[in-house]
Amino acid sequence: MDPVYLDHAATTPLAPAVFNAMLPFLGERFGNASSVHARGREARHAVESARIVMAEALGMEPVGIWFTSGGTEANNTAIRGIAALRDGAVITGTTEHESVLRSVDYLARQGREVVLLRPGEEGSVAPAAVSGALEKPAALVSVMHANNETGALARVTDIATACRDRGVPMHTDAVQMAGYEPVAPEALGVDLVTISGHKLGGPAGIGALLVGRAVDCAPLMLGGGQERGRRAGTENVAAIVGFAEAIRLAAAAMAQERGRIAGLRARLAEGLSAELGDAIRFSTRPERTAPHILHCTFPGRGERRTDGEMLLLRLDLEGVQASAGSACSSGAVEPSHVLLAMGYSRREAASALRLSLGRTTTADE
Amino acid sequence: MDPVYLDHAATTPLAPAVFNAMLPFLGERFGNASSVHARGREARHAVESARIVMAEALGMEPVGIWFTSGGTEANNTAIRGIAALRDGAVITGTTEHESVLRSVDYLARQGREVVLLRPGEEGSVAPAAVSGALEKPAALVSVMHANNETGALARVTDIATACRDRGVPMHTDAVQMAGYEPVAPEALGVDLVTISGHKLGGPAGIGALLVGRAVDCAPLMLGGGQERGRRAGTENVAAIVGFAEAIRLAAAAMAQERGRIAGLRARLAEGLSAELGDAIRFSTRPERTAPHILHCTFPGRGERRTDGEMLLLRLDLEGVQASAGSACSSGAVEPSHVLLAMGYSRREAASALRLSLGRTTTADE
Repeated sequence: MDPVYLDHAATTPLAPAVFNAMLPFLGERFGNASSVHARGREARHAVESARIVMAEALGMEPVGIWFTSGGTEANNTAIRGIAALRDGAVITGTTEHESVLRSVDYLARQGREVVLLRPGEEGSVAPAAVSGALEKPAALVSVMHANNETGALARVTDIATACRDRGVPMHTDAVQMAGYEPVAPEALGVDLVTISGHKLGGPAGIGALLVGRAVDCAPLMLGGGQERGRRAGTENVAAIVGFAEAIRLAAAAMAQERGRIAGLRARLAEGLSAELGDAIRFSTRPERTAPHILHCTFPGRGERRTDGEMLLLRLDLEGVQASAGSACSSGAVEPSHVLLAMGYSRREAASALRLSLGRTTTADE
Repeated sequence: MDPVYLDHAATTPLAPAVFNAMLPFLGERFGNASSVHARGREARHAVESARIVMAEALGMEPVGIWFTSGGTEANNTAIRGIAALRDGAVITGTTEHESVLRSVDYLARQGREVVLLRPGEEGSVAPAAVSGALEKPAALVSVMHANNETGALARVTDIATACRDRGVPMHTDAVQMAGYEPVAPEALGVDLVTISGHKLGGPAGIGALLVGRAVDCAPLMLGGGQERGRRAGTENVAAIVGFAEAIRLAAAAMAQERGRIAGLRARLAEGLSAELGDAIRFSTRPERTAPHILHCTFPGRGERRTDGEMLLLRLDLEGVQASAGSACSSGAVEPSHVLLAMGYSRREAASALRLSLGRTTTADE
């Protein structure tokens, strides 16, 4: 029997239509999009058509899509690129993805003031906390849309309003929410949005920084004039074409998938509750969580404790593929920084389990 | 009739064996290499096996291979990563790839002293010029192996000796020579080497910085602990596997391909000379040029001048796909910075033609 894959927040299988869209560009249509001959122009056409398809699916201008090598690069670009052009503090949360936290660490070592906000009860940074931090002059606010471990949703639109009132650009890492909610900068009211291909049925090695009209951001990757000078490096044509197809498919199925997946998650949570009672503790409320993530801990009692790593290995042996937290820090001995920031004990944080559903998840599973 | 593709220095078709090696990882084996379950461990195994295969083919330690999103990222990482850890001037040449030149520009704007050396008669920076520049304390020397436009080879080993004598790390962009000559740091005597997948039959979106044992380099991409903390971001498993296979194939065929391609290039040059006489001027001597690149200009006489862009378009119509210089700056109105640095007039530089051969090039073509 095939294993049940409940780790879609780590990565997703390539959708068959995405693979088919990429195929010609891994074969005969291999041109460099900057070459002037027919094969090069064909590649350029593919990149710019993909950008238009993606822009339409996202509901934004094509020119605002800067293709990167993935979510990590998009987050690095947004944070370091805005800080390069603006003075003031960089405001973010303690539960952000490592690529945001390490980027602000980097800025802090260069002498930049960094404000790290703790999450509120919902597991995300509260708008009031951001408003408070904005009392001082700020270069940027970066608050993630859905947390990659717990799925906790931030009130992005409210935070964006506070930022706009102060004239401070806002970035959000929407890697986990793209495909489940419109994430274009204008839709969220923010200035910069990070998305990633392989989290929604697209290929690995491709992502994008979505950039609104009102903001300027310095490039991270320096070199040739690709992406209008915003991101140097030969365009990954096949991956760009696949990414656009994945976004198009996700947008077309968004309302339906969101409901279907949230329904499956509710069933899973009910089943676990019925079986385990108060031995399981869900980390967030479903209505304030990305629809595909079910995150829980096993508080234990007295001497009884659950080791998350052991739990994962046993689930794996039983044919269930899941995660303790983010794949990016799997293998780390330290308990999740996200759970510690939310006030969990180290012991309870070490018992965490993330079950994440996706396009290929079925009720039978 | 299929067009004759003479733009291998811009990009190359994916070798069929490379495509086949990648295929499972675009399908069933889609795991995130950082996930702890079986599918994740399978991906981890694929990445580390690829690193070992590649290291053996290159003749170096696996731990020295840092996978990046391509040559541009590897160049950015080397230059900015060494400069982050060492004081002193950054020494490079005026004919370097844009990704090197823009990276040193970035450092210069931050107040770093940058020494830009002009090329000698061979079209590359001479060892004596580097030795002279090393009179002052230096953080790094970066001199490219084969120029991406003219193919001019630098005397990398001699420059490396001068650097070692001064205790200054040396980086070389070997994107154009990988596949034609051993380019491991130890083989060249340097500390850091940039290579790229799509220039030698591998996929786009993947490259590597090859790092010798004696040097430390700060990461450019910050976030998760991938690549032992040297390069954050979810591993692009399919591309890494394909890259390793491309390097393995290239290493196995290196001696033979080098001779075959240099032979074809000589035949091409002879044919052009016989046809065009002194209307064509070859930019470098073949024995001091990467074997696959034939670069020339059309000096013209009196009122007669050749416009390189027009020439390319006419060649394209005749079924020959070539380039004026680097694809990375195609479409730029400015004449090549490489040719201007070599002392060409703007008029002659604007007539440049780069014919670049590769694995799929045949004598019949």
